[in-house]
Amino acid sequence: MTLTNRKFLLAARPVGMPKRSDWAYVEEPVGEPKEGELLVKLLYISLDPAMRMWINDARSYMPPVGIGELMRALGLGVVSASRNPRFAVGDHVSGLLGMQEYALSDGRGIAKIDLKAALPKYLSVFGMPGMTAYFGLLETGQPKPGEMVVVSAAAGAVGTIVGQIAKIKGCHVVGIAGGPEKCDYIVRDLGFNAAIDYKSEDVKQSLRKHCPEGIDVYFDNVGGAILDAALTQIRRGARIVICGAISQYCNTGPIVGPSNYLSLLSNRATMKGMLVLDYADRNAQASAEMAGWMAAGKLKSREDIVEGLATFPETLLKLFNSENAGKLMLKVA
Amino acid sequence: MTLTNRKFLLAARPVGMPKRSDWAYVEEPVGEPKEGELLVKLLYISLDPAMRMWINDARSYMPPVGIGELMRALGLGVVSASRNPRFAVGDHVSGLLGMQEYALSDGRGIAKIDLKAALPKYLSVFGMPGMTAYFGLLETGQPKPGEMVVVSAAAGAVGTIVGQIAKIKGCHVVGIAGGPEKCDYIVRDLGFNAAIDYKSEDVKQSLRKHCPEGIDVYFDNVGGAILDAALTQIRRGARIVICGAISQYCNTGPIVGPSNYLSLLSNRATMKGMLVLDYADRNAQASAEMAGWMAAGKLKSREDIVEGLATFPETLLKLFNSENAGKLMLKVA
Repeated sequence: MTLTNRKFLLAARPVGMPKRSDWAYVEEPVGEPKEGELLVKLLYISLDPAMRMWINDARSYMPPVGIGELMRALGLGVVSASRNPRFAVGDHVSGLLGMQEYALSDGRGIAKIDLKAALPKYLSVFGMPGMTAYFGLLETGQPKPGEMVVVSAAAGAVGTIVGQIAKIKGCHVVGIAGGPEKCDYIVRDLGFNAAIDYKSEDVKQSLRKHCPEGIDVYFDNVGGAILDAALTQIRRGARIVICGAISQYCNTGPIVGPSNYLSLLSNRATMKGMLVLDYADRNAQASAEMAGWMAAGKLKSREDIVEGLATFPETLLKLFNSENAGKLMLKVA
Repeated sequence: MTLTNRKFLLAARPVGMPKRSDWAYVEEPVGEPKEGELLVKLLYISLDPAMRMWINDARSYMPPVGIGELMRALGLGVVSASRNPRFAVGDHVSGLLGMQEYALSDGRGIAKIDLKAALPKYLSVFGMPGMTAYFGLLETGQPKPGEMVVVSAAAGAVGTIVGQIAKIKGCHVVGIAGGPEKCDYIVRDLGFNAAIDYKSEDVKQSLRKHCPEGIDVYFDNVGGAILDAALTQIRRGARIVICGAISQYCNTGPIVGPSNYLSLLSNRATMKGMLVLDYADRNAQASAEMAGWMAAGKLKSREDIVEGLATFPETLLKLFNSENAGKLMLKVA
């Protein structure tokens, strides 16, 4: 029996929000693994803000996805055939498997999952967003007990974990999120000290109210006006973690830089970029610590799972419209 | 005999470039020092880019100069009368003495100068610009031997010292300056490896040419388009020292933020602000080291000395028109 693979190729460079016509959804027969290869049947595929950057024709930490190429995506699946001694049929694996149903791979960049929690957790708290939050906050942000930590996109996959880890570390935590449902969630369910609804509040004024002595650590996932508002409220010696800039990824013009960056000077503050790739060798240790916090009820995660690979072009937009509730992913049929 | 003091007060908040009508030049009798006070006759007054920030109505590391108040300025003078036991008539002193001929002071923030070099050097290499360069480069920039260091406003009071110290520390140094005279000066006289004339070259392309493997330390005095160009050429782990933003100080609109700041993320780079005030207790040590380098012929400084306090409004503009050759200061008649 010949299996059929379905996959999304990048058909055109999107301008602003990616449209369905920017993608090509194609079918092809699944190949047989050659010596050293394995075949993975995808189960869940992660949808991430970084995807919007990967399809820009711009130099970054990875080369852009080329026109006509398989869309890059993190995913998780089960090995359905293997001629690679590191992997056996039935193993659960994760990696950059692409936006498709079946991935044929030589095994590079693919890791076995030692399954101890529900599968989707390996794309959220135990996956890239969880590791980003853990290392971005603790290594780059360097929060100390009693400090004021502010995080944007606070109800998102990274922001929820950042805020909860900051609470575990004894910080005072304020989250910035869009809409009352998200704000309620981070305060009532996750224990943030306060939430600022950027859709209905003046972020600068609300930061002044909730952080009367200023911000020690600002973890930025959004860029734009919210980063600029946070810059006006930082304290001396503050650390700003640059993790993402989702407000800017679908711009049709250039990215808007932080007009208030000279606040770094008057406050002797630091703005530092981080990439989770750099911490691959410490993921197991971080996962173990986070699993302990989850077991103790101190760390929660929420996944927003949408059925069907074919929905990718529309589902992706939930990220940029701030419509996802938790870590967004596709369940492959 | 009653002495007459002449001084500049801030008369109006400037919009863009400060005009003469933004200042009031007034005369008044010089007061007698009361118990604990001293009277300083100003000899040299420093003109600094930061002055433009001090007269904006905006929160910064110091409160803004108020309308009708004496213009803030660093200066250097000789004690002409003293009822303060720390100071004797004839002592040379420096501090925030104001834009005036005579300063009556309680001695706070005023330091005695142990005169070992020509007086103007205490406002340049042994003064605020020299200390800014020394601590900004070595503490904030953390250059290592063999690294690529780029500095903007490279022929200015801070930039010349930054580049020379970087050379002393074994770095490869590229300076960005305006016009052939300044570019020749930093390469031929000061030993920079290369100069980029931002008035006639495409800075981004020239940086790519002179820094083929990218920039490790970028010391920014200018902000704006040059900061943005440098951000496109940084290497992984780069450090960007935010020392000033002279291209932005006379804007009539908001400061332009660095559009390419997400390069911090893809390069895991750091942008950090520094203020020389924080290193006051280590100035003596830095001055001693710099004096050694000067004696060895490894460190040079140049001063641009303009005669007459009354020229202040026009002389100040040389900074923003990039017309000064070396550390700009007034010689008080």
